[in-house]
Amino acid sequence: MAETGLSTAWSRALGLRLPVVNAPMGGVAGGRLAAAVAAAGGLGMIGMGSAGSVEALERELAHVADAPGHIGIGLVDWVAAARPGLFELALAAAPALLSVSFGTDLSWSERARAAGIRTATQVYTVDDARRAHDAGIDVLVARGLEGGGHGAPELGTLPLLEAILDAVQGPVLAAGGIGSARGVAAMLAAGASGVWLGTALAACEESLLSPGGRRALLAAEDTGTIVTRTFDVGMELPWPQRFPARVLRNDFTARWHDRVGDLAGDPGARAELAAATAADDPRVAPVDAGQGVGLVTAVRPVAEVLAEMCSGAVRLLDHPSR
Amino acid sequence: MAETGLSTAWSRALGLRLPVVNAPMGGVAGGRLAAAVAAAGGLGMIGMGSAGSVEALERELAHVADAPGHIGIGLVDWVAAARPGLFELALAAAPALLSVSFGTDLSWSERARAAGIRTATQVYTVDDARRAHDAGIDVLVARGLEGGGHGAPELGTLPLLEAILDAVQGPVLAAGGIGSARGVAAMLAAGASGVWLGTALAACEESLLSPGGRRALLAAEDTGTIVTRTFDVGMELPWPQRFPARVLRNDFTARWHDRVGDLAGDPGARAELAAATAADDPRVAPVDAGQGVGLVTAVRPVAEVLAEMCSGAVRLLDHPSR
Ligand SMILES: Cc1cc2nc3c(=O)[nH]c(=O)nc-3n(C[C@H](O)[C@H](O)[C@H](O)COP(=O)(O)O)c2cc1C
Ligand SMILES: Cc1cc2nc3c(=O)[nH]c(=O)nc-3n(C[C@H](O)[C@H](O)[C@H](O)COP(=O)(O)O)c2cc1C
Repeated sequence: MAETGLSTAWSRALGLRLPVVNAPMGGVAGGRLAAAVAAAGGLGMIGMGSAGSVEALERELAHVADAPGHIGIGLVDWVAAARPGLFELALAAAPALLSVSFGTDLSWSERARAAGIRTATQVYTVDDARRAHDAGIDVLVARGLEGGGHGAPELGTLPLLEAILDAVQGPVLAAGGIGSARGVAAMLAAGASGVWLGTALAACEESLLSPGGRRALLAAEDTGTIVTRTFDVGMELPWPQRFPARVLRNDFTARWHDRVGDLAGDPGARAELAAATAADDPRVAPVDAGQGVGLVTAVRPVAEVLAEMCSGAVRLLDHPSR
Repeated sequence: MAETGLSTAWSRALGLRLPVVNAPMGGVAGGRLAAAVAAAGGLGMIGMGSAGSVEALERELAHVADAPGHIGIGLVDWVAAARPGLFELALAAAPALLSVSFGTDLSWSERARAAGIRTATQVYTVDDARRAHDAGIDVLVARGLEGGGHGAPELGTLPLLEAILDAVQGPVLAAGGIGSARGVAAMLAAGASGVWLGTALAACEESLLSPGGRRALLAAEDTGTIVTRTFDVGMELPWPQRFPARVLRNDFTARWHDRVGDLAGDPGARAELAAATAADDPRVAPVDAGQGVGLVTAVRPVAEVLAEMCSGAVRLLDHPSR
């Protein structure tokens, strides 16, 4: 298989055919997406976002009961803290990788280690990376500010990866703005142990994304995103200040992004967001997306997207145009 | 020579040994820096920034009169427009590459082409790239928001390069946040025709940077930069709104960044900046720097930095740890 040319020490240690992990995208990366990534030879993550719950995780895990290959789970720190039993259910599922992001207390990783489960977390600076490394996290996800969804908008993916690999020992996955074979080749050439793909897989056939969200992703251009707290404030979600989200610009961000302060506790705005979400109207409802969104132009099966990205990366790395 | 393993079709067409160009950093990349880059096998650019003038360009050109290798010149659009004779002097010098950035009218490139001079300009989006390509610019510089100095903070270097190579034919140089061998390897693997390095070379022995600016660069960490119009407004420089600058955070940005509006026309602030610049005090004066600044930790000769970055990139590309 052509793709085996891409394997890294880390992907081999995990028994993966491809050094590829899908980001645990809440409301997007359910069991079907994870199973498709795992079947393609990567590590398929089930994501529990701000609406994550024991019931939702049970439902998504049911889709991977017979999945060939490796399945992981990704949680949001403050959501896990608010939903008793969610972290325990994730541990009990014995995932190939457990990721908890968007917190500062990394002691959850000790419980995972005690259960023999590998751990990951997203980091945004060299300081973050050192802290996660010192806490014994197995693989760091260097997530650059280009990335879709929540994250600290600190460094671009390229300088972040360079700085972390310079400062910390151990495997690092690259995340944020990786949109095509070129991005995969770049990150592996730089020394990443694998890539953590969000936006590039969000519109795939197997994703949970709503039809409206999918249409909006396909239509968006390279400059169509914005980093904002608008939706989190509008929906009164307790996301930490450090983690705004990169989303598609839409009517709602145009109206509110510059005056988020006025939005806090505005019942009209909250109702408007709820209605737009119920109506699947991406002109108002949030759609998470990274800066690679301009390269997402069709709804395709995961297997097709990964084959194209990975065989293209092999070609770039083995037969460079240089 | 190990570095020849890095050559690209573009670098070969220009007769370069290394697919490396130093950014035409105003007040930093003078004739000595350019000559050192050219001697190392790259393309050495002399930069004329907001203080550029006919006299300054003549002075810097004198340093490269006997330079072995390729010398180019980089101008700022609105500075060239304001200084009669500057563009003509640049043309008359018959540089190996002429770059004019930060404008919208690309008709200067016709005059360069008529004189048989190759042209470059910095681009920040796919739209920019299409416009520059249609205007006949020879090589596009895909400059991501991680970059030091002025630029449009649109896309990260990685997704920008991916998107432009997908949309436009012809050679593209990657710029912004390339701090080490890993960054060079990444950009070449992705398909860039070369790298355009600013921050990584700004503190080199041969640069024009003041001792205070150099010390500040060496001390800065990965998260030590900010994109701001603070200094341009404070010094009443007519930089277009679209092009703020990435600089080191300092006392002045801490006081003014959040209220740039109040700064316009403040005579005290203007005097303070002038005094700090005269006193070479980087706690107040501006120091341009990109997000790779954390990897700049010593004052070294250009030849040493480029040898390390390029031979390291060869190793990463030829003998991957994958
Ligand atoms: C639609 C979407 C939803 C996301 N939801 C989550 C989430 O619930 N938990 C999480 O850790 N990261 C989430 N992320 C962020 C990803 O983990 C990752 O940082 C990001 O997708 C990488 O950048 P990219 O989108 O440019 O590939 C989400 C990203 C997207 C695009
Ligand atoms: C100190 C410094 C001065 C700069 N001055 C100029 C300039 O006068 N003209 C120009 O086109 N670009 C200038 N730039 C921007 C560079 O062309 C380039 O976009 C940037 O350096 C690339 O990112 P990097 O600094 O992360 O390598 C400058 C950059 C730095 C760091």
